[in-house]
Amino acid sequence: MERLFNPDGIAVVGASSNPAKAGFVAIRNMREKNYPGRVYPINPKEKEILGYPCFASLPEIGENVDLVVLIMPARMIGEIMDGLDRRMAVRHDVKFIVCAAADYAETKTPEGVRRQERLMQSARRWGIRVVGPNCIGVIDNRTRVDTTFVDTGVPFSTFGEPTGITFISQSGALASAILMEGAGRVVPVLYNKFISIGNMADVDFVDLLDYLETDETTRVIGIYMEGYRDGRALAAALRRVTRKKPVVVLKVGRSATGAAAANSHTGSMAGSDSVYSAVFRQSGVVRVETLDELIDTLQAFDKMPLPAGGNVFLYTQAGGPGIYCTDAICRWPQLHWPVVSDETKRRLTESQLPMANICHPEGYADITASASVANHVDGLQIVLEDSAVDAAIFLTVVPTFLPQKQLAEALVERERSCPEGARKPVYYCVMAGAYTAEARAIMERGGLCTFNTPDKAVLAAKNLCDYAAYRRRLEKEDAR
Amino acid sequence: MERLFNPDGIAVVGASSNPAKAGFVAIRNMREKNYPGRVYPINPKEKEILGYPCFASLPEIGENVDLVVLIMPARMIGEIMDGLDRRMAVRHDVKFIVCAAADYAETKTPEGVRRQERLMQSARRWGIRVVGPNCIGVIDNRTRVDTTFVDTGVPFSTFGEPTGITFISQSGALASAILMEGAGRVVPVLYNKFISIGNMADVDFVDLLDYLETDETTRVIGIYMEGYRDGRALAAALRRVTRKKPVVVLKVGRSATGAAAANSHTGSMAGSDSVYSAVFRQSGVVRVETLDELIDTLQAFDKMPLPAGGNVFLYTQAGGPGIYCTDAICRWPQLHWPVVSDETKRRLTESQLPMANICHPEGYADITASASVANHVDGLQIVLEDSAVDAAIFLTVVPTFLPQKQLAEALVERERSCPEGARKPVYYCVMAGAYTAEARAIMERGGLCTFNTPDKAVLAAKNLCDYAAYRRRLEKEDAR
Repeated sequence: MERLFNPDGIAVVGASSNPAKAGFVAIRNMREKNYPGRVYPINPKEKEILGYPCFASLPEIGENVDLVVLIMPARMIGEIMDGLDRRMAVRHDVKFIVCAAADYAETKTPEGVRRQERLMQSARRWGIRVVGPNCIGVIDNRTRVDTTFVDTGVPFSTFGEPTGITFISQSGALASAILMEGAGRVVPVLYNKFISIGNMADVDFVDLLDYLETDETTRVIGIYMEGYRDGRALAAALRRVTRKKPVVVLKVGRSATGAAAANSHTGSMAGSDSVYSAVFRQSGVVRVETLDELIDTLQAFDKMPLPAGGNVFLYTQAGGPGIYCTDAICRWPQLHWPVVSDETKRRLTESQLPMANICHPEGYADITASASVANHVDGLQIVLEDSAVDAAIFLTVVPTFLPQKQLAEALVERERSCPEGARKPVYYCVMAGAYTAEARAIMERGGLCTFNTPDKAVLAAKNLCDYAAYRRRLEKEDAR
Repeated sequence: MERLFNPDGIAVVGASSNPAKAGFVAIRNMREKNYPGRVYPINPKEKEILGYPCFASLPEIGENVDLVVLIMPARMIGEIMDGLDRRMAVRHDVKFIVCAAADYAETKTPEGVRRQERLMQSARRWGIRVVGPNCIGVIDNRTRVDTTFVDTGVPFSTFGEPTGITFISQSGALASAILMEGAGRVVPVLYNKFISIGNMADVDFVDLLDYLETDETTRVIGIYMEGYRDGRALAAALRRVTRKKPVVVLKVGRSATGAAAANSHTGSMAGSDSVYSAVFRQSGVVRVETLDELIDTLQAFDKMPLPAGGNVFLYTQAGGPGIYCTDAICRWPQLHWPVVSDETKRRLTESQLPMANICHPEGYADITASASVANHVDGLQIVLEDSAVDAAIFLTVVPTFLPQKQLAEALVERERSCPEGARKPVYYCVMAGAYTAEARAIMERGGLCTFNTPDKAVLAAKNLCDYAAYRRRLEKEDAR
């Protein structure tokens, strides 16, 4: 699978010089990301596209091609595969096809099924692995490969460093939405790898899970799933991977109507949701409900160590939002209010203004809107040093009179000065909107995990706690 | 109450020329909003602030003052009230005090309680109504009054037209967060009126509900609530208002721990959540769980007519997100899948590409990623014309090859050409991130209600449906 993400030569069939076409955006994405490898647009009518010389057909490319990307209309598949066959008979070089076009077997028309069969016939003959069809392509933001035709609307230069988040999507549209939504965050999210698998004519969930299990740059795996034909193989693959890294799944088709829509869509049999639920629960998969929760949770896993337990301290500068957050925490029985030591309470009281509320109720501190930057940071450090505390939610509604840039930098500095082994997860909820975007950007770029509302911070905390508990159970079982 | 939102003369005690102080931001907000009335900063050390000449004390202002805003430190309250007493003995002009400072009775210290008592003593003596203390102030975006010291980080010129949304918050921090979060939306939300009521030493929920019931510019009321001393009066006021306009409440202190935190915070007895739940249910109040749902729901009520029933058609251009949305709809038993007529199905089929999925399952159409602008708009119009359809969720993940600006303009045009009586609620989910921000801005400024994820659109649809059902029940009862 390595060559899919780091190919020696990429041919793009259906490349276009028309900026409104998918076959243009795919080429432009690699140009914008400064992809250092060789790219060959296949277009008999053009001389070059964005500086890449064009070729009329696959056999004409004189150098090695590991990966062929198909973005041309599906009806041309016969002609293109004939060309591929001629090339392979001579060069034997192509190892992967990413077939991004639609109108294949997912249409359930005899024509669509025949086209997919034609694609797979050549692929099987030459031992080529196929991603798709009916997908949006593949990205590796470390090698800078990007075969997708998604425009995130955000200049590549403003993205953060590549994360450890790898994403697999069964839906092309959902995949686009995840790329775009991630790009729209305070610091645009640069996924590690990104695979839209479409119809799964060949490469599927299990293939990718097997590969990603040992992929060193992947710290956490996100999946959008409609259904999979082999529940037993899926469960086994998930169980193997979750021993090493978290897997976060947005599985749709929960409702009977949703399952019917899924069947109309990719033809996938969504199957009974309770079966998937059981598989996920037994394999330590974190199942999420919404797109926001999905991205939030993936970022939290990527940036933070796992908590040692479910004791979450709520450290707030704002009363109302603190109560709102308290309610959100209380929804989850797996989260608990830590009772810190008298010594911690004494130190915490000393570090704060006289009107601060320290531990009424237990596990809760309200340092008030008058808190200084030092009040914010010192108290958080004291809380995290208490052994009863496994994680903290830090909550602030930055008033105009608090220098937010200083606060953000001091929080980053506190985290940096933490010895690696002593780090605990902290969910930074910095409310809200455009006013705090600069502070949040400083924090995010400094490695902290930020949220704009308390409920989102709590969901991420709950999800990390669930997976950590699963890993602890595994360790106990292994020790027996 | 009229004069609170349209005062003839505003004095600001604690006005400052230091941009880091709340007493500066309040003055600056009114300057930025081009408040046309008279503003008198009270500051014995300054000559003028942002062009407004300063006065040393309240008695020195030679013209009429309807509203006095207090942003100075609480310990100065005696001195300031003495000055107010002197002024009132001569001029009898002040009708409202907005006391934004903290450190009053909410601290539960004898000193804090005494300060609040001193404030109220003068107020009662002269018949002045008091908002606060421990609040962030009052806004009316039609008269341009803004006594708050919140910086939203967004230039005032980029806000949309004033909405019909009026908001009341018991927490100052939550109030700031709502202003900032609203300002951070695709088109910054300009609330109609905004009242932070803090300790409710005088003006409280019931006073404001009574006033807003007949306030013509208020189409919908949002409330953040921790607790209220008189449940019966609250229920009666809510019942009166919801006969005329929707009330959306984020009530915290649901959990026992949250209630304890609320008690520490504003000293309010949150009381049993089940009592509040019953009050809200019986009074037709829409109760929401999160800040996102709160703002989304308020905007939906403000912009759209109420649905005639719970039949929601899901009209999607994207398969995966369509299934995700289907699951979200199925969570709510009050939402139903409309079965449109054969004639509608025939027209819908004719208006779409051959691969479009029309009504499998019923109430669902997937027009596919190849759909043109005309496909998007024509089909939506056909769906909405069917009498079985009470509302629609319109879902699109705009591909790079679809001109999103044209799509947005065509959708606005469709809505505009709708005869007023024939309008039905449409929840436009335009995924996602920065890429579609321009399209969403065109749609929002054109009066449409947009969302970035399906779950948010569904929550708003459910909330409008609930309130509409309540109003229909009332009408039936009244008709008996």
